[in-house]
Amino acid sequence: MSTASSLNIERKVLELGTPLLLDGGQSLPEMRVAYETCGTLNAAKDNAILICHALTGDHHVVSDHPKTGKPGWWVRMVGPGKPIDTDRYFIICANVIGSCMGSTGPASLAPDGEPWAKRFPVITIRDMVKGHIAVLDALGIDALHAVVGGSMGGMQALSLASNFAERTRAALVIASTARHSAQNIAFHEVGRQAIMADPEWREGNYYAHGKGPEKGLSVARMAAHITYLSEAGLTDKFGRRLQNREEKTFGFDADFQIESYLRYQGLSFTDRFDANSYLYITRAMDYFDLAEEHGGMLANAFAGSKARFCLVSFDTDWLYPTAESRNVTHALNAAGLPVSFVELSAPYGHDSFLLDVPALDRVVEGFLG
Amino acid sequence: MSTASSLNIERKVLELGTPLLLDGGQSLPEMRVAYETCGTLNAAKDNAILICHALTGDHHVVSDHPKTGKPGWWVRMVGPGKPIDTDRYFIICANVIGSCMGSTGPASLAPDGEPWAKRFPVITIRDMVKGHIAVLDALGIDALHAVVGGSMGGMQALSLASNFAERTRAALVIASTARHSAQNIAFHEVGRQAIMADPEWREGNYYAHGKGPEKGLSVARMAAHITYLSEAGLTDKFGRRLQNREEKTFGFDADFQIESYLRYQGLSFTDRFDANSYLYITRAMDYFDLAEEHGGMLANAFAGSKARFCLVSFDTDWLYPTAESRNVTHALNAAGLPVSFVELSAPYGHDSFLLDVPALDRVVEGFLG
Repeated sequence: MSTASSLNIERKVLELGTPLLLDGGQSLPEMRVAYETCGTLNAAKDNAILICHALTGDHHVVSDHPKTGKPGWWVRMVGPGKPIDTDRYFIICANVIGSCMGSTGPASLAPDGEPWAKRFPVITIRDMVKGHIAVLDALGIDALHAVVGGSMGGMQALSLASNFAERTRAALVIASTARHSAQNIAFHEVGRQAIMADPEWREGNYYAHGKGPEKGLSVARMAAHITYLSEAGLTDKFGRRLQNREEKTFGFDADFQIESYLRYQGLSFTDRFDANSYLYITRAMDYFDLAEEHGGMLANAFAGSKARFCLVSFDTDWLYPTAESRNVTHALNAAGLPVSFVELSAPYGHDSFLLDVPALDRVVEGFLG
Repeated sequence: MSTASSLNIERKVLELGTPLLLDGGQSLPEMRVAYETCGTLNAAKDNAILICHALTGDHHVVSDHPKTGKPGWWVRMVGPGKPIDTDRYFIICANVIGSCMGSTGPASLAPDGEPWAKRFPVITIRDMVKGHIAVLDALGIDALHAVVGGSMGGMQALSLASNFAERTRAALVIASTARHSAQNIAFHEVGRQAIMADPEWREGNYYAHGKGPEKGLSVARMAAHITYLSEAGLTDKFGRRLQNREEKTFGFDADFQIESYLRYQGLSFTDRFDANSYLYITRAMDYFDLAEEHGGMLANAFAGSKARFCLVSFDTDWLYPTAESRNVTHALNAAGLPVSFVELSAPYGHDSFLLDVPALDRVVEGFLG
């Protein structure tokens, strides 16, 4: 790609030499972590920024997606002269373990040569962060300039700043939360049940049988997708407009644009994502409760940290609403850490962190310095 | 049941003598409408109140549910001395056509002796109201004292007051809307796709093959159920509490109470509801747009009405939020009709209209007089 040389994009896979001990008590042998870097690590190795991706994201933060061919998922934020400036910073983004884009997950082969499938251990957000720490170790980076993430990426940023406090000097947490609420868990459970209800799921052992539980995964994605958008945003974008027709058909076709859009979102998702990975990653998010990991007091989670923090929420985000960011901010205040918190106005709901919100660009640029 | 004599409960089935012409252009022969009455119709036949039920509701407003054995769905509101007072008013509640509790729906037998299944025509809210009007005709009731309904029942109340304006002197519309929003349609589409993705659905022809698309219907109900509850209500009721265990299991069982609750809601729903009815009724709701029926101006929908109106919303209802009731109120104001509108505070989200909200009781009692 034409910008590769200026961005200095590299894609690598780290093979962990030792088994990764997981929060659930098991350990994963033969772990791999796929990651992308761009920019240049300076001699002091103190200009690295780790970007953490969201549930269905990947490490292709600036490079084209290998399956869809689409541009990297955060090219609007990351690049030369952009808010996360690759002329100044060395950017790392690692695929989370449990995923299906290069790091070890349920679709990967276990030591017996068969896919892990449901034998893959249930992992946590902290386990994902352990994978990231292994990458930092491999690169010889003692401490990050900052860890940055939106949504599930924000959970990883919080977990890293808490559990590996010495490894970052700053954390930027966007549209995220320190714990999954009952409603968050509920929506994920609907998605999991949709996948597991599909007979093509075959208790997770679908890899040798064609394409797997595509219909169930599609329904799961449709349900989740609604939570990423605001009610007003959906009304603006689709309203009750019909899809390529003048009249309602009095049938069950996709009469409305919103139906057609959702069906497309569901269907296209199955081309790029593994259903078992969806189960495992949603489970990790549901298990996430940073306070619980630290005796039930969120402030205690940050006892070992000396980092600066920035929390950003969006007024139309009903998945991780502003109250969740405020909750983290209060805990950081209680821990005596420097924290700035801003609620931005944007019409796009939870997905605002990925979209064109100039105010977010200014916050990111200002915080990273 | 012990209260039957004092309530004077009667269950009847009206067999329509002539085919019912539907909004979609088809007509339904051999239509039946099942309904329940209680209280006593006075000689002037001017003390009747029609109660309209919600999506998965039925006409058993005060009598025990024939399948679940549970008390009628609105016994807290309807009865002697209650806000809808059976000592004064004659109460009618009819099962909507398209449903599966006695009125003709997709599970009913078509003239050829086979279930209608997907041959059943797609109906509208107005078509459901035509069924109710047939009941009023059969009972010799020219005009209702009031039509009352929550959620989809409120849509029927609005449709009746608009399209059969001379048939009611008042309309009480609770937690409802004059049109389904893009987000409303989106959630319903997820449910329909979950049902239709289940191979047991068999393109709707499952009646001769055991129990039908239970897994798909269960997922549909789980997704919908989340929209009936508020985020804060879910947090209060379940939070992140575990279900009968001390520790997370690091697996995909229902570790959290909210998961167990949702699975139960989904599973028990399949015992009492027909999957095809769910498809048809959600479709009718998605098609509902009272303004569109009247040239795009909601005020025009009420041009023929002389009724009093009362709109009630709940502050935690994010399915049909207060703005929707306000929208109707503005239209009624523009039409010059007497309307009162109140937003009540209640923690239960959309389901508040069915639950213990004393302020609602007072509004209902005050409006009905």
